[in-house]
Amino acid sequence: MKEIDAPIGVFDSGVGGLTVVREIIRQLPSENIVYFGDTARVPYGTKSRDTVINYSEQIVHFLMTKEVKAIVIACNTATSYALDVLKDKLDIPIIGVVRPGAITAVNATRNGRIGIIATEGTVGSKIYPRVIREYNPEIQVVQKACPLFVSLVEEGWTNDPVTDEVARRYLRSLLDSNIDTLVLGCTHYPLIRKTIGRIVGEDVTLVNPAYETACSLRTLLQQEGLYRESGKTSYHFFVSDGAERFSKFANSILPVDLVPTRLVPIENY
Amino acid sequence: MKEIDAPIGVFDSGVGGLTVVREIIRQLPSENIVYFGDTARVPYGTKSRDTVINYSEQIVHFLMTKEVKAIVIACNTATSYALDVLKDKLDIPIIGVVRPGAITAVNATRNGRIGIIATEGTVGSKIYPRVIREYNPEIQVVQKACPLFVSLVEEGWTNDPVTDEVARRYLRSLLDSNIDTLVLGCTHYPLIRKTIGRIVGEDVTLVNPAYETACSLRTLLQQEGLYRESGKTSYHFFVSDGAERFSKFANSILPVDLVPTRLVPIENY
Repeated sequence: MKEIDAPIGVFDSGVGGLTVVREIIRQLPSENIVYFGDTARVPYGTKSRDTVINYSEQIVHFLMTKEVKAIVIACNTATSYALDVLKDKLDIPIIGVVRPGAITAVNATRNGRIGIIATEGTVGSKIYPRVIREYNPEIQVVQKACPLFVSLVEEGWTNDPVTDEVARRYLRSLLDSNIDTLVLGCTHYPLIRKTIGRIVGEDVTLVNPAYETACSLRTLLQQEGLYRESGKTSYHFFVSDGAERFSKFANSILPVDLVPTRLVPIENY
Repeated sequence: MKEIDAPIGVFDSGVGGLTVVREIIRQLPSENIVYFGDTARVPYGTKSRDTVINYSEQIVHFLMTKEVKAIVIACNTATSYALDVLKDKLDIPIIGVVRPGAITAVNATRNGRIGIIATEGTVGSKIYPRVIREYNPEIQVVQKACPLFVSLVEEGWTNDPVTDEVARRYLRSLLDSNIDTLVLGCTHYPLIRKTIGRIVGEDVTLVNPAYETACSLRTLLQQEGLYRESGKTSYHFFVSDGAERFSKFANSILPVDLVPTRLVPIENY
């Protein structure tokens, strides 16, 4: 296999990272993809830094057995805790979803007030405020952890009065802070984008890091001479539990039909 | 250490099992306890049978290193999948929360219609209908998975209009089935017992398996000559992640002050 034909490895704590895969398929339609969703150990958002780093390292070991040419961490929590650690250890390119999302938000804000909604882990790591201030130290960043959003998405209540009420509760403090830009800092959240958009109103720009991550990935691959412009593609999906449940969800949000998802005993990697 | 002074091992997927520990402390006040909460891998309710059995075996290996004299599976999902497997392998007594809850419900119902609310795993295993029909094959059992309840409890929204609305939604089909008894078939649910009780009304008897599990444990220990009637007690708590978060929660619901919770690398057991 030529290196350019090697797949891109993408991983997440579960199904949320599929929103990133969806963008990669749209924007880099000739790239092969190997996806791993850690459905046995989801969610990452409430776990400690050490645990998330340990899990991320196991997943990267697994992806390396698939001879991936680059890795995308399609999970904000794993990016927050593990990206720098993994970057030091790997000799292939690796990117996360945080920096692309942060840059887009910096470019989008007009009043210099950006809101971040994310898991407790991502909020606690303060990675978004830190990266945003690298680009513009004047910007004010207001964060809010929204742990129930992941469960509501996994329950399928993406368009539901309960989700509306939970969102109103979580977003109130951000709106009081007069933000004009809001980063969907967890890969599950784009799946309730309409609800969030309705509550914050059309004057607030929603930033979906998945979109910008796919753009960054293309740029990175082009720089490294690894970008694949044409050819037939294959997509392979692996999870640590509940392969059937995962496939059903993936088929509902991806523009391609999945081959059966396979189980991986990830603790052995 | 005399065998009678050995601790009772109790485990759960996370914090929910503390509702069982609370009952054991109340009803068996002289027993020593070692608790393990698998907070790194919570929730179990959406995981597959094989994964839950694998995790439960690791935890039992860990508890055996503490020389426990008996084990309580304080998690309905783990009981559903792993109790029979573990019973075959162990030479100390082990009980789960399902059978005590089922028997109480059988004794409580007057119209022969029992509702079960639980995780997807417990509902899918059909263990409650099976055990209930062992005692009385005439009883009709109606089940409903309520996956959001665990997240709402972990978010601390135990007395909240959102939780009310979610509960109304989940419980509607059970009420339509004219049940007169409802089993709280997940150890998290007693923590929103008031909300559930308000919605089902006072004509429906709520069964908390934690209470009956503690009674069954006492009977079992007495039969085996292992019941400890007096003496100073010690309680030890172990988790696989987030020890501080766990301690905070435990201190809010237990009648004793905790010594610091310790972390265990459970995957190595």
